[in-house]
Amino acid sequence: MGIWKRHVDVYEDINKIDDYIRTSLQANQRVLNDAVNDLLDAGGKRLRPVLVLLAGRFGRYNKEKLIPLAAAVEIMHMATLVHDDIIDESELRRGRPTTRSRWGNSVAVFTGDFLFTRAFSLITQGVSRKNMHHLSSSIRAICEGEVDQYQSKFSQEISILRYLKRIARKTAVLFSLSCQVGAEESNCRQNTIRYLRKFGYDFGMAFQITDDLLDFSGDQNQVGKPLCSDFMEGVYTLPVIYTLQNTPYKDKMAKYIGRQDLTEGEIKEVGRLVEESGGLEKSRRLALRYLERCHNSLAQLPDNKAKGAMMELLEELIERRY
Amino acid sequence: MGIWKRHVDVYEDINKIDDYIRTSLQANQRVLNDAVNDLLDAGGKRLRPVLVLLAGRFGRYNKEKLIPLAAAVEIMHMATLVHDDIIDESELRRGRPTTRSRWGNSVAVFTGDFLFTRAFSLITQGVSRKNMHHLSSSIRAICEGEVDQYQSKFSQEISILRYLKRIARKTAVLFSLSCQVGAEESNCRQNTIRYLRKFGYDFGMAFQITDDLLDFSGDQNQVGKPLCSDFMEGVYTLPVIYTLQNTPYKDKMAKYIGRQDLTEGEIKEVGRLVEESGGLEKSRRLALRYLERCHNSLAQLPDNKAKGAMMELLEELIERRY
Repeated sequence: MGIWKRHVDVYEDINKIDDYIRTSLQANQRVLNDAVNDLLDAGGKRLRPVLVLLAGRFGRYNKEKLIPLAAAVEIMHMATLVHDDIIDESELRRGRPTTRSRWGNSVAVFTGDFLFTRAFSLITQGVSRKNMHHLSSSIRAICEGEVDQYQSKFSQEISILRYLKRIARKTAVLFSLSCQVGAEESNCRQNTIRYLRKFGYDFGMAFQITDDLLDFSGDQNQVGKPLCSDFMEGVYTLPVIYTLQNTPYKDKMAKYIGRQDLTEGEIKEVGRLVEESGGLEKSRRLALRYLERCHNSLAQLPDNKAKGAMMELLEELIERRY
Repeated sequence: MGIWKRHVDVYEDINKIDDYIRTSLQANQRVLNDAVNDLLDAGGKRLRPVLVLLAGRFGRYNKEKLIPLAAAVEIMHMATLVHDDIIDESELRRGRPTTRSRWGNSVAVFTGDFLFTRAFSLITQGVSRKNMHHLSSSIRAICEGEVDQYQSKFSQEISILRYLKRIARKTAVLFSLSCQVGAEESNCRQNTIRYLRKFGYDFGMAFQITDDLLDFSGDQNQVGKPLCSDFMEGVYTLPVIYTLQNTPYKDKMAKYIGRQDLTEGEIKEVGRLVEESGGLEKSRRLALRYLERCHNSLAQLPDNKAKGAMMELLEELIERRY
């Protein structure tokens, strides 16, 4: 998070969020505390709370109000991760065993529930009714995105439209809302709120496409899970969809769609196909288009340190390798 | 629910709750809709929403406000059931396959999450901030009660105190809160709220003890799951704890504690021991003591149809066989 160092005042409050989260998640049961601490120690980029705080800088920034809100958004996100790992039967996240693989599905179920309810408790303390409603609806959208992903596993009916709709729900909605609530709770002007919300949405889309790219092209040690994990689990993301749309590669790729028993050699071949067909490149280009939209939204906003930090977030995403 | 027929006005609104729940739980995904409809069709006593509405009758009863609130409380309860069944690996509830056994753990995880977020969305629409906070904290208490139960499975360290603390969290807190929010949102007087809250708590305790009794003495077809299910899963409830406190039976019972491999004959022997030792009888008596406290609380409240209906709930619980 070196980038924040150039914007010390923002950086300081972001550091407080982890402490705030840790304090709010004290539970009476040891296993819950262990599971929660493990999640916090695993790190993560804390992008959603960062967006809440940065958006708040465009209005009357009130740290007493925004830190609990930013913490709540991150806790919600943590809850969805813990439950997603049950659904996807994932062993690793960020290079560490997932809650379910370490403590079992049962502990993972109630750890997620505990996180959800703590997040809602925090939200009921300071957020406007409208934003409370938005936040709970966003978790509903995330759920629906996950259900869609789960249900279309190994399915041959895939399209760019469906993919985009899914990642919008799964990721972009909460990024967008993080910006929106940060801005609204700081009494920003309507236009400012609108562009910040748009920035968050496009940033979330670019972020998720990049995440899906890294499943094919990232550094396995840095991504923290084996390459082509999504593909092996039957989750066909943008690079695969583009490859299937490229006539000379379509039939070669189609052989591997819907199969749960791919060999190591076949997985490598899938990796080669998305690269050679230009599927990766096209995906990268779409991510860049979303980042361009982010720039356009920022251009509509007044210049300040927060805007500078947001520009840096965009640069960091372009360079993202893990 | 024949009892309500004598109190037609209360009865009518309770009928509306199921429709309200069904409408609020429309999802975009078919599997979610199927899982939710299955849960609703399974029935259940809807005791928590009934308590919300009855408590509301002691103040300025506003059905537009109370029906969504009562629905939200039931949806929260449904969410905890779906997730509990994952934790307990239960195959049957109310005589039907559980969500997890019918659709798998993954669908059960997100069905529960979907229900939680819908409940929170409903709550953010009309409930006071204080009660919103109480409601999310109650789900936290339920989680903690479940974690405690899960962690002490097959454990020999069992005591009446720990049992009571656990069922308070697991069950009584939400019963109590149902009464409290129904009363507070209807602007009841402080004293009325206090006695209704107390009524709900004691009723919840009596209800859970009766539930645990039925695991040994109920009609298997009506309870909807095999007898001694809790014991086989290592959940040692009040009748077992009383048996372990009765010197002549202590050693006989101790042989079966902590074991995961009980034969059918041994299970029958456990059933015989809780009966012969007076463990069932003592548990029944404790449930009756909680019901007496319920009567005492009702005695402090003004006479009205809702109070009559609450008296009937107590009678029904005493006669409960399933």
